[in-house]
Amino acid sequence: MTVRFPFQQWITPRQPPEVERLLKSAAAQDHVVSLAGGLPADDLFPRAALAEALESVMREHGREALQYQWSEGYGPLREQVVALLRGRGVEVGQDELLITSGAQQALDLLARLLLRPGDLLGIESPTYVAAIEVFGLQRPRMVPLARGEHGLDLEAVRALVRGENQSLLYLAPAGHNPSGSSLSAGACEELVELSRAHDAFIIEDDAYGRIQFDGPRPPLRSFPGAEERVILVGTFSKMLTPGLRVGWLVAPAAVTAQLMLLKGIADLQTNTLGQMALASYLDRHDLDAHVDRCLPRYRERRDALLQSLAAHMPAGVQWTRPTCGFSVWVTLPAELAADSLLARAVDDGVAFEPGAAFFPVEAPRNHLRLSFSNQTPERIAEAVARLGASLRAS
Amino acid sequence: MTVRFPFQQWITPRQPPEVERLLKSAAAQDHVVSLAGGLPADDLFPRAALAEALESVMREHGREALQYQWSEGYGPLREQVVALLRGRGVEVGQDELLITSGAQQALDLLARLLLRPGDLLGIESPTYVAAIEVFGLQRPRMVPLARGEHGLDLEAVRALVRGENQSLLYLAPAGHNPSGSSLSAGACEELVELSRAHDAFIIEDDAYGRIQFDGPRPPLRSFPGAEERVILVGTFSKMLTPGLRVGWLVAPAAVTAQLMLLKGIADLQTNTLGQMALASYLDRHDLDAHVDRCLPRYRERRDALLQSLAAHMPAGVQWTRPTCGFSVWVTLPAELAADSLLARAVDDGVAFEPGAAFFPVEAPRNHLRLSFSNQTPERIAEAVARLGASLRAS
Repeated sequence: MTVRFPFQQWITPRQPPEVERLLKSAAAQDHVVSLAGGLPADDLFPRAALAEALESVMREHGREALQYQWSEGYGPLREQVVALLRGRGVEVGQDELLITSGAQQALDLLARLLLRPGDLLGIESPTYVAAIEVFGLQRPRMVPLARGEHGLDLEAVRALVRGENQSLLYLAPAGHNPSGSSLSAGACEELVELSRAHDAFIIEDDAYGRIQFDGPRPPLRSFPGAEERVILVGTFSKMLTPGLRVGWLVAPAAVTAQLMLLKGIADLQTNTLGQMALASYLDRHDLDAHVDRCLPRYRERRDALLQSLAAHMPAGVQWTRPTCGFSVWVTLPAELAADSLLARAVDDGVAFEPGAAFFPVEAPRNHLRLSFSNQTPERIAEAVARLGASLRAS
Repeated sequence: MTVRFPFQQWITPRQPPEVERLLKSAAAQDHVVSLAGGLPADDLFPRAALAEALESVMREHGREALQYQWSEGYGPLREQVVALLRGRGVEVGQDELLITSGAQQALDLLARLLLRPGDLLGIESPTYVAAIEVFGLQRPRMVPLARGEHGLDLEAVRALVRGENQSLLYLAPAGHNPSGSSLSAGACEELVELSRAHDAFIIEDDAYGRIQFDGPRPPLRSFPGAEERVILVGTFSKMLTPGLRVGWLVAPAAVTAQLMLLKGIADLQTNTLGQMALASYLDRHDLDAHVDRCLPRYRERRDALLQSLAAHMPAGVQWTRPTCGFSVWVTLPAELAADSLLARAVDDGVAFEPGAAFFPVEAPRNHLRLSFSNQTPERIAEAVARLGASLRAS
């Protein structure tokens, strides 16, 4: 009997199956250096401190840690997230905060609540791949807003919010992936002003907000007047650990109340043990100090990548100089397709993310993203030398 | 400035806000005995074994446990879930399995993939509240299928699958909540036959499948011919711990492939540490033996509840005799409303789940659910005595 389906092949991944297959196979081969994926450095995880936090939670609160929790998240962790955000200039009421299963779930809940098919969504181009996927499920009309190392196309933003009542925008003002850049204070002020004047909502992806190499950057949500217009999405994934899947969102209380119901329907709650372990860790350790210890290491890796690119890239290849985040965005000569290059590169011992997937519409193929975050400077140098060889051979 | 929204108050919880408020306040008061919520017994969690598993994972595989994972779930855990299911007569291919953030997320992914507004959904009545909520978000036409202690209305199932091509059904054949009953083998055979004959899909909620007091019950998915028609949803929550939020689904490979993409979009992956800790626990401990040690304790609590009901309920109150699960389903005289009774009951020191929320359509108000799973026999007896007093006073 053949299985028939009451559904079409509904979900198309942004990266073609062949790219996914290559990246997965590359990850399983030790000799391939992967610069794909936005993975935090696993040698920088505070393993002993987190193990101690887990052990203490299990010893002192084992029953609670293994039991169900309310959908809004573990109370003490909620208070600590509020304190963390206050440290970045964001004042949050308890009824504005929701703990989520990572920042990705926060985006999913927001997309499901705020977008209907045909709605307008302003979205940076290029941007975080899984954001295009999660918003794309709601079938909005995506309006690309050019974003790069030198900023956001504010003229496109103005045209969008003036032309449409109550539009929704998805932006990463402080810590844009893949360009590794943050917006100026002036641009942030104008974004807040435009959203207030035209009744727009901005979803701010702050996942990389703390990974800054040129000094701290305040989130857009911290700017005066932003509290009713900017929904902030954050996570422990990039600054501490992604393995516990704990993130959050901050929205006006009436929006958060609906998102909390949706969160309960989507997965009941974020895992209790991970939340309690994080709360215990934050009780005893200074997360800001941990991040500040990590930053020089990430900067060192970024510098290794930039130096290697200068040494090994053929003429005509360009790349960003990230001031934040985990990755460098590379532009190949227009006639080269990064996705076609990948198979050869993996054979040569290096993997990367082809860039077409980062564009919400009209995707050029001559970009790729290189992540420096989870490799040593030595491995990065070796990987870029291999990539240079692959490029010259193609 | 007043916040305006580009959305309506879209999500309405099944339990009215007043009921939610009462249940939450009851949970915070030590003197109130809560028989609400389907919580596993927190005194039966194998805390030492799970703490040891966590400690060993952090010691031996700390970097991996704190890092991202692939969306399909942690490989060794996937193999162990396949083995667990084989022990219940279900043969599963690796490409049919997906690890999820609890059974609830499995239902959410299935609803999003398989249901479009206006689609027909056959759903047991009464049934698990959060299933009504998660399917309800897709705005299907829900067709109630009467289900109780004595079985499922198979005539209604026949009428549904014969009248509609490719219909979808949500059932809990082995371990129905709230009635605490399982279907006969004959009923299961007919369900498989009907689904095959009429190209219907059945989503089988097996969350309580192992909590059986009268000997094991095979899941519907284990019956011959079910593999292409029955999608099984399971979880560690009721038989081990809900605090790690790890569940699974088993579907035909082509369906699972789409669900895996959707899972990646929804929250990237289920938390790595919880999955690895469960894999480590299952490596060293026999989960079936653990469940078999728990069952007499749950049975004892069920019996305490049944005896107390016989002693304290006024005339005209009826209730089920569960052979599985965590709860007893109580029917009050038709003129009494359980939701109105709750405030008085909480004042009297007992909480329960009003039953109207368990009905997908046309909800009578004279039912309530009492969970015996997470209270001692002594507390259960006291709670039912209090409930009897509340009932006599109302």
